[in-house]
Amino acid sequence: MANQDSSHALEVAYQGEIGAYSEGAAVEALGDAITPMPCESFDAVFEALADGRADRAVLPIENSLAGSIHRNYDLMLRHDFHIVGEHIFRVHHNLMALPGQSIDEIDEVLSHPQALSQCEHYLRDLGVETHATYDTAGSAKRVRREKLARTAAIASRRAADAYDLEILAAGIEDDPENYTRFLILAREPQTPAEGTNAKTSIVFSLKDQPSVLFKALSVFALRDIDLTKLESRPLRGRRFRYLFYLDFVGSVEEERAQNALRHLEEIAPMLRVLGSYGRHIVQSA
Amino acid sequence: MANQDSSHALEVAYQGEIGAYSEGAAVEALGDAITPMPCESFDAVFEALADGRADRAVLPIENSLAGSIHRNYDLMLRHDFHIVGEHIFRVHHNLMALPGQSIDEIDEVLSHPQALSQCEHYLRDLGVETHATYDTAGSAKRVRREKLARTAAIASRRAADAYDLEILAAGIEDDPENYTRFLILAREPQTPAEGTNAKTSIVFSLKDQPSVLFKALSVFALRDIDLTKLESRPLRGRRFRYLFYLDFVGSVEEERAQNALRHLEEIAPMLRVLGSYGRHIVQSA
Repeated sequence: MANQDSSHALEVAYQGEIGAYSEGAAVEALGDAITPMPCESFDAVFEALADGRADRAVLPIENSLAGSIHRNYDLMLRHDFHIVGEHIFRVHHNLMALPGQSIDEIDEVLSHPQALSQCEHYLRDLGVETHATYDTAGSAKRVRREKLARTAAIASRRAADAYDLEILAAGIEDDPENYTRFLILAREPQTPAEGTNAKTSIVFSLKDQPSVLFKALSVFALRDIDLTKLESRPLRGRRFRYLFYLDFVGSVEEERAQNALRHLEEIAPMLRVLGSYGRHIVQSA
Repeated sequence: MANQDSSHALEVAYQGEIGAYSEGAAVEALGDAITPMPCESFDAVFEALADGRADRAVLPIENSLAGSIHRNYDLMLRHDFHIVGEHIFRVHHNLMALPGQSIDEIDEVLSHPQALSQCEHYLRDLGVETHATYDTAGSAKRVRREKLARTAAIASRRAADAYDLEILAAGIEDDPENYTRFLILAREPQTPAEGTNAKTSIVFSLKDQPSVLFKALSVFALRDIDLTKLESRPLRGRRFRYLFYLDFVGSVEEERAQNALRHLEEIAPMLRVLGSYGRHIVQSA
């Protein structure tokens, strides 16, 4: 019998409407053959993976300009899934409207607040009013459904195609270094073999003691294990106490990683490995 | 001649409408005699301080449930102000409506997305529709101005007073451990003397080298200086490279703090002291 991945198209849950940036990232990371499963909220994405409707979840975790998407760190902790991959996605914002509209006729622009803020200078020069919505692709859908004249949406090229809108201007982001890092989650781990270019994500808590974070980082430094990220999050119900999300280079299959994690367990009251996975390296444009 | 602080009421800029949580924090921290200066955006708060209209800015920097307000870290870096104080503010959310409305008649609730999410369980049990707005106090203002029936806002008690709304339910936040840490900024530093219970906030960058964060933290650990916070932010224009915001216990007037910072300068291409200030310690309720 064929394995699951070849016997049916992977069902991939993501937050947003058809045409969302997350959908684009899912297709780039997992291929054209996937079945996209748009979900209303991040919570709904996790639920779809939990109850087996989805085989994978694709979640934005960090944007190079805006920072981490903390909600998704919190949700990862609440569920027991495994990170099986990452994908770094170049965000291109596009201004789109009903076919036949010219750019001079636009006086209102709809999009997610983060997309609006990433196109702030462009929009100011254009002299338009902006309205914040919940979703980039949802804005495009709304322009189409409500047949909004003189109104444009900022969204992906996939959204323009999905809702039959015309792109009036492409690549309107103020800063071209606009990348979002997505994580791919599954119910079962897929730990990469030793020697592959792997990365491991963990989360841990620390006691409120002097130099305790220094000691926690020493378990990696003493073994020449490189960190690629350290993020602190408030611990719910413990005012301004923190959890630490840390990524290091290497797989949990490697002995030095196992030693470092065993050492960290001596210091950290809570430690969880979120997953080891292939590292996605993107060359600078 | 009297000094500035006694010759006129301190003009204190904050983001939000009259009645915003930030206004409440400003009054708790700086006293009833201040002149509140509501501003539309965080950028406008910084501008008011820059051009001398405001004497102080009061900015939320971190919520115990939602995490850091990154926009304000970015704005601090862009401006050259000094942190002169901190204030930890207990957030109480209240459901309010036009006088005479009863809670069973409410079918729509307006507020900032963060306030809505912090009252998620309460609102679900109430069975109402929610609509996200830009501002908690602004939602209260809107209910009053548009005389919205069957509609409530979630905002502070100050907002209920300011817009003459009736509180239908008080303290509706799902998690009582809801605190926001505010920073007080001024154009000039007010470094606390050695020996006071002080705290210092710094920001620094690091080269992309092995164990470099470990080395940076060692400058504090080697001198028994406690850290109270470490936060990483993406460096604009440098994909997934980070700036670090760090708070430590002690004042820059202390010799060991000066030594630690001199040591850190050997490692950090960029280092800036954002301010030393009195530590605000709140006992658990």
